[in-house]
Amino acid sequence: MAHIELTNDLPGISGLMAQRPDTAAPLRLLADALLRTGTPSLSTGDRELIAAYVSELNNTRFCSDSHSAYAAVQLDGGADLVEAVLADPDTAPISEHLRALLRVAAEVQQAAQPVSDAAVAAARAAGADDTDLHDTVLIAAAFCMYNRYVDGLATELPEHPDYYGESARRITDHGYRHRTKPGDSSGAA
Amino acid sequence: MAHIELTNDLPGISGLMAQRPDTAAPLRLLADALLRTGTPSLSTGDRELIAAYVSELNNTRFCSDSHSAYAAVQLDGGADLVEAVLADPDTAPISEHLRALLRVAAEVQQAAQPVSDAAVAAARAAGADDTDLHDTVLIAAAFCMYNRYVDGLATELPEHPDYYGESARRITDHGYRHRTKPGDSSGAA
Repeated sequence: MAHIELTNDLPGISGLMAQRPDTAAPLRLLADALLRTGTPSLSTGDRELIAAYVSELNNTRFCSDSHSAYAAVQLDGGADLVEAVLADPDTAPISEHLRALLRVAAEVQQAAQPVSDAAVAAARAAGADDTDLHDTVLIAAAFCMYNRYVDGLATELPEHPDYYGESARRITDHGYRHRTKPGDSSGAA
Repeated sequence: MAHIELTNDLPGISGLMAQRPDTAAPLRLLADALLRTGTPSLSTGDRELIAAYVSELNNTRFCSDSHSAYAAVQLDGGADLVEAVLADPDTAPISEHLRALLRVAAEVQQAAQPVSDAAVAAARAAGADDTDLHDTVLIAAAFCMYNRYVDGLATELPEHPDYYGESARRITDHGYRHRTKPGDSSGAA
């Protein structure tokens, strides 16, 4: 049971967002800005993968499963690729560019301290530009927030196994700004 | 020197926000929603104090000094009270209500996991309601993001010692939505 009373039965962050539309609004806008706007060298699928990976490192099941599903529908490798990255980015069949950015994200997840010069240099050697580095750091930092919000308040996991897939279809079609109403089964960040 | 090139000389998060208005917009809206809207039992000064305390635990100098200055101008105890809280919330001259919420915030800072039942029960015994608990958890989580963003990208500290005080006056008058332009000396989250 969550630490606060929710007047809806939505799982994870969706229940918190339906309960508190005042804070949900900027949280959704941030997710849209970071995840739904792909850039030439960091696609929306890559961004979702970074979000899923950081959530996995934080052991936040709801966010890891949600963003894994969102990444899987957007990346050519699908669910198998996402699973391989979450298991071990060092051996997963991804570009050296994305692998280097995942290493940057892992450093950000660990602590609020400068990403190591070595990790930045490796990312640049693999072709990362300032936008890639900025967005990777901010996605990783943001999921250190979303994960703490979801787990800190002890929210529930979804009951239905098809929750994440349905939610993925909705996010892909409408983005994060689509407001979850009590009774919906749609997801969010 | 920051890990990415900035076309402005603003310190901390202000430089990143001026550089990237697309992500700055939701980050500012979130800070306004969490810090600038006081509730009956959690004032804007209390909220800034929680932000400063979490930033201090994360050793993020820019955010700790910024939000300490913002808290100091809003709390009756001023800078002395803020300093006492950052040094040791257990002995600082604050209400048991705020002390219990700072303990909740410290747990959120540590890891993405449920706040302990003991910390929640202690906060409720000291009079905390669902809004206090929700907002404390989300403020603490959000500063785990802001701190990682500022430190992860290795931003600079301000050169002028009066930077934080000036910034505090501006935030108090205009809130976080006031957009920092290159050349301004104003601060942000």
